[in-house]
Amino acid sequence: RSGEMAKLTQLIDNEVFRAYATYATIVLLKMMLMSLITAYFRITRKAFANPEDTTVFGKGESTKKNLRTDPDVERVRRGHLNDLENIVPFLGIGLLYALSGPELSAAFLHFRIFAGARIVHTFAYLIPLPQPSRGLSWAVGYAVTISMAYKVLKTVLYL
Amino acid sequence: RSGEMAKLTQLIDNEVFRAYATYATIVLLKMMLMSLITAYFRITRKAFANPEDTTVFGKGESTKKNLRTDPDVERVRRGHLNDLENIVPFLGIGLLYALSGPELSAAFLHFRIFAGARIVHTFAYLIPLPQPSRGLSWAVGYAVTISMAYKVLKTVLYL
Amino acid sequence: RSGEMAKLTQLIDNEVFRAYATYATIVLLKMMLMSLITAYFRITRKAFANPEDTTVFGKGESTKKNLRTDPDVERVRRGHLNDLENIVPFLGIGLLYALSGPELSAAFLHFRIFAGARIVHTFAYLIPLPQPSRGLSWAVGYAVTISMAYKVLKTVLYL
Repeated sequence: RSGEMAKLTQLIDNEVFRAYATYATIVLLKMMLMSLITAYFRITRKAFANPEDTTVFGKGESTKKNLRTDPDVERVRRGHLNDLENIVPFLGIGLLYALSGPELSAAFLHFRIFAGARIVHTFAYLIPLPQPSRGLSWAVGYAVTISMAYKVLKTVLYL
Repeated sequence: RSGEMAKLTQLIDNEVFRAYATYATIVLLKMMLMSLITAYFRITRKAFANPEDTTVFGKGESTKKNLRTDPDVERVRRGHLNDLENIVPFLGIGLLYALSGPELSAAFLHFRIFAGARIVHTFAYLIPLPQPSRGLSWAVGYAVTISMAYKVLKTVLYL
Repeated sequence: RSGEMAKLTQLIDNEVFRAYATYATIVLLKMMLMSLITAYFRITRKAFANPEDTTVFGKGESTKKNLRTDPDVERVRRGHLNDLENIVPFLGIGLLYALSGPELSAAFLHFRIFAGARIVHTFAYLIPLPQPSRGLSWAVGYAVTISMAYKVLKTVLYL
């Protein structure tokens, strides 16, 4: 068993894989933050999606009144869904890219730009910044993922 | 080739990785179940999102009448989206955590609590149980994921 | 370091893993295409979700008028969400399946049918084709994922 553990440790000790692990964790934590922001706006705006939620957080007021949508809540939820749509491809394609033997400098470039773009995207969505801030930050993350997918397919293509 | 296969088998034979594979598959199957529950409610409540669906499942009744939202359907869909928002981070961070060399007992603790919390969350959402049942089960799964992310970043951080 | 790189290269050189990497990348790129199709319909239908978007793409017209939902946009968005709900399980379970030592021919069969089913599903959703086209293509992809999950659990189950 210690031999197997050693092998796993070698994987996690590989520099490209460590870089992937770091940035994948960062963008996932950023995405998880959206849940807390949604909860914050639901509670402060008193805008809930479930009847059972209104009795806990909206005490003393009519249940029906607080069972509603709120523009700020919906904005965070759209940002959260956009994260899912873009971070899931990054996780999958990024993992395969990290295993496809890229140069460490190229890998860092991809991971850092993607993480930076998604963080800018979140600010652009939540503040909100005027367009095309959000559109551009989305496009940068998208292009980075496409670039990694190209490297993966060039390395492994096996239909 | 058989040498490479042997190496892959060693990965899947590692105890922590086997535990991850087991619980990751369980929570993904649980998430997939939400699709079937949504379909069940759409058919029994006759509440469809697409015009072409109403002609198959809602025969003999007006198409427009069955093109509608239903509270039960929307509840399952919210549960499904909440699964996506929480299980995607578990999959990514959990994989990296399993590769970061945790104690087997600690890994089991994280994986079992997460899977249990998500199963409780599903019952709390669908029955529904009074709050804070759903909120607490969500928070437990969230905290487990944060704990694994902390271990990953402590082990591999490489910005 | 070159020793570690060699080991990673061995993983990516494994034939089953290469097949997984290829098809996982293809279905993720297909899913990412949904973002572009959504953007296309939002711009051509002038139907935006955010006030700040209307001032860029809907110049010369009232902002409020373009802040609306459109049936074509909503259809693509439902297809995108369905992709997320089904491709995330494929990514996770498929990776574990690829590591569980399946026969190459069996692995190809699973990956090809899944990718084909999701491509048919997208056409069935967007054209749209009459039901049960979309339902059947969804069910085929679902069944393939269940089949892989069964193989994974049979190989690694460790509760």
